[in-house]
Amino acid sequence: MRIVFPVFEGLTALDAVGPYEVLRMLPDADVVFAAAEPGPVTDGAGMLTLTATAALADVTEADVLVVPGGPGARANVGNEELLEWIRRIAATAGWTTSVCTGSLLLGAAGLLDGLRATTHWSATDLLEAYGARYTEQRVVEQGRVITAAGVSSGIDMALRLAELIAGPVAAQAFQLAIEYDPQPPFDAGSYSKAPQAAKDYLASR
Amino acid sequence: MRIVFPVFEGLTALDAVGPYEVLRMLPDADVVFAAAEPGPVTDGAGMLTLTATAALADVTEADVLVVPGGPGARANVGNEELLEWIRRIAATAGWTTSVCTGSLLLGAAGLLDGLRATTHWSATDLLEAYGARYTEQRVVEQGRVITAAGVSSGIDMALRLAELIAGPVAAQAFQLAIEYDPQPPFDAGSYSKAPQAAKDYLASR
Repeated sequence: MRIVFPVFEGLTALDAVGPYEVLRMLPDADVVFAAAEPGPVTDGAGMLTLTATAALADVTEADVLVVPGGPGARANVGNEELLEWIRRIAATAGWTTSVCTGSLLLGAAGLLDGLRATTHWSATDLLEAYGARYTEQRVVEQGRVITAAGVSSGIDMALRLAELIAGPVAAQAFQLAIEYDPQPPFDAGSYSKAPQAAKDYLASR
Repeated sequence: MRIVFPVFEGLTALDAVGPYEVLRMLPDADVVFAAAEPGPVTDGAGMLTLTATAALADVTEADVLVVPGGPGARANVGNEELLEWIRRIAATAGWTTSVCTGSLLLGAAGLLDGLRATTHWSATDLLEAYGARYTEQRVVEQGRVITAAGVSSGIDMALRLAELIAGPVAAQAFQLAIEYDPQPPFDAGSYSKAPQAAKDYLASR
């Protein structure tokens, strides 16, 4: 069970690490973090560095492809080398997935044309420009293509994917292992529910 | 606003990355990942590598201390050098916090004696051995010491901490930024709610 995350400068780390902590528990999971070159990759905030364990060119297939988002995803929508790699791996993958603005990379690669899909709430117009039909859901399944909304939604997506791959008991076990019994102190986690003051705060930064 | 995460071989990455993605948005946040030596630190599953950006010895104070857990936390409860560092930094910190079995390190450092605290559901006896009173809550606040339950609970903890530091509007803005509107596909995220089959699945691995 080869699970491949492309990583790049400017990714949002939680987009990758959330699903990783679920999917790494799949039976015989072999997780690869792949970048143009192996080595350090710094996140969009410039404060956290992950390590790419393989070069994109050395990864030729995947059972599960998970494309994270972040400022670096938006910056790479014209990176034909990355897009061609995504197309090539997606053609081999049982499941092609994205978290947050990772869906823009799937879209730019031509993989969402005509499909329902989701992304971070700030990128819905960009997603639709690739022919996807933005759908305001946390996880959108279209056959073997699954897209998740912003950042933290990758955890929910990965649990659903674990259910599809290994069944509901395994997925519930993984949820218990990461003690995912969410109790956010506010109900401000979606654009439709967040108060205007919170939106203004973000817009002012 | 200096936010310090000690990191070590065998940590659970999400324990650190979940709170990181919230706390990095605090005004003037300066995040440091500190290990015995700067450089790569591999997680408990052996598949994900973070980078420590500083040596423990070079970090002498923090506004916020966040101690992650994982197999490496359990392995380090006798590491006097790390425990002494935790005691020293906690003495300077406005907030001393832990995620998952990171609380065992706070306990081993003598910081939880007589306090209510939480940890991963699998480590409650170990926690109480340090004089803490295990409390089955996702986030436990005792003055300036805040402990969170397993792995994913660090996100909830960090949002509460953001509220305490920067106010509710900022915390709600951060929740919106990471689109934390959790919708797990099952209700199996706590030991009291998970079905027996899921517990059996974990025990069999």
